[in-house]
Amino acid sequence: MQVIRSIQDMRQLMTDYNDQKKQIGFVPTMGFLHEGHLNLMREARQEDDIVVASIFINPLQFGPNEDYERYPTDEQTDACLAEEAGVDVLFIPTAAEMYPKPTLIQLGIHERTDVLCGRSRPGHFEGVLTVLTKLFHIIHPHKVYFGLKDAQQLAVVDALINDLNFPIELVGLPTVREADGLAKSSRNVNLTEQERREAPWLYKGLHYGQRLIRGGERDPDQVVRDVTETLQQHLSGTIDYVELLGYPSLQPVSSMHKRIILAAAVYFDKARLIDNILLDEKGDIITRYD
Amino acid sequence: MQVIRSIQDMRQLMTDYNDQKKQIGFVPTMGFLHEGHLNLMREARQEDDIVVASIFINPLQFGPNEDYERYPTDEQTDACLAEEAGVDVLFIPTAAEMYPKPTLIQLGIHERTDVLCGRSRPGHFEGVLTVLTKLFHIIHPHKVYFGLKDAQQLAVVDALINDLNFPIELVGLPTVREADGLAKSSRNVNLTEQERREAPWLYKGLHYGQRLIRGGERDPDQVVRDVTETLQQHLSGTIDYVELLGYPSLQPVSSMHKRIILAAAVYFDKARLIDNILLDEKGDIITRYD
Repeated sequence: MQVIRSIQDMRQLMTDYNDQKKQIGFVPTMGFLHEGHLNLMREARQEDDIVVASIFINPLQFGPNEDYERYPTDEQTDACLAEEAGVDVLFIPTAAEMYPKPTLIQLGIHERTDVLCGRSRPGHFEGVLTVLTKLFHIIHPHKVYFGLKDAQQLAVVDALINDLNFPIELVGLPTVREADGLAKSSRNVNLTEQERREAPWLYKGLHYGQRLIRGGERDPDQVVRDVTETLQQHLSGTIDYVELLGYPSLQPVSSMHKRIILAAAVYFDKARLIDNILLDEKGDIITRYD
Repeated sequence: MQVIRSIQDMRQLMTDYNDQKKQIGFVPTMGFLHEGHLNLMREARQEDDIVVASIFINPLQFGPNEDYERYPTDEQTDACLAEEAGVDVLFIPTAAEMYPKPTLIQLGIHERTDVLCGRSRPGHFEGVLTVLTKLFHIIHPHKVYFGLKDAQQLAVVDALINDLNFPIELVGLPTVREADGLAKSSRNVNLTEQERREAPWLYKGLHYGQRLIRGGERDPDQVVRDVTETLQQHLSGTIDYVELLGYPSLQPVSSMHKRIILAAAVYFDKARLIDNILLDEKGDIITRYD
């Protein structure tokens, strides 16, 4: 596996692969890799000729009171794990390499951001859109892989690719979970022992919502109320939101007869956890988005 | 010359050229081609393997009271002229092809737009950034050519390419002028006879500014005042602006010892004309920007 740190070297390498007509699969990450990331890399390994992953903690997508400075890093372990998962090229630029001077160009998005995590993270998705556009232009992937755990991010990237005609296929893969159901996340290390014990209830609460829907509940507000109550009973953290929306439009739905997302976020003491399930028209969980 | 109207066909063709390692030069236009455009195409013909031009009147870059509906078109003549100028591929998508549904993603730019034409055309450069990003993603050019006449547009595209790491070389070529000095523009046909007679004074006024600078004038405000006065004396239209700024930053300058733009815009009855000169540190006109 090659580790590359400069944009120029990366461009040259990708041009070479392109000349060799290799199909490039790309997994963008912020590092501190866990099974969720590795699952994306392994899938790209199956589907593409060359697997590129990036590790870049993008300052633009963190708010002033968020955990940019505290975001965990472990480059050596990451490199080892990425190589095992089948990555050919690991791109690890510095912030100075990616943003040599303040960027004048801004990317924004109408809709899809003033709900779920976007509401409490103003500017977050603008930062995500900017860094992904830059990475796409440097790497020129044919396919890009994201976890369904960041379902709002997936919906935003879906708009980015479609609206701006990026020649890239978007693939969303299932959230990878611990044995007890907790979604894997780099931020889980910031949970206290007690919080870690409760945390699986985030997923259990969403599952309860799915059971209500499959049992015939057709009122989105009722589902949201019941899931919220369940989470409040079992979690000591503060609930940021429980929402049920159309997907990927992230618009309110009046009935359950379409593809929807049921999502929740909870603030614990030093970590904010999110989780969601995507359901098809019948209330079955969607495991691949493309 | 091939005329292509669908994004899918265009993508396929450009992928083929890319596989053949052809260097692609791209000239985006809104049609109604004149010598300014043809000059860009002829230069691309000299510098690149394949010359692609586009004709697309981008609704996104016109304000509600601007001339979108009135913008002149003549596709047949355009195709003939483009072919003569050496264009290999002419891309003419419809608005429905480019914007099948309202775009959710917005591109914006801090700086460089609240001066010159940007001030009286809010949203204009956002529209330009969006359509160029889309065209770049469809066409994948190695080089893109613009006229220095739209110097603010060139400065904005310069930021777009640099900030978002587009793998594209930007080339700005000199304004092409009528024998009497009037910059060629698709909008010149909307001038009355009397306005057309006066119009060369736009350029003469800027030249007068250059002479002041070369003669030792070092106060930007004084140059702007003197040029404004000259234009007012000779033009019946309303002066929109006369400005002297750093280039491509488009920030105010306190002295003349750097690359600057001296630019003016005038409203006539049914046409708004713009012109500018770029000057290097010595006050000499810059004829190629790259």
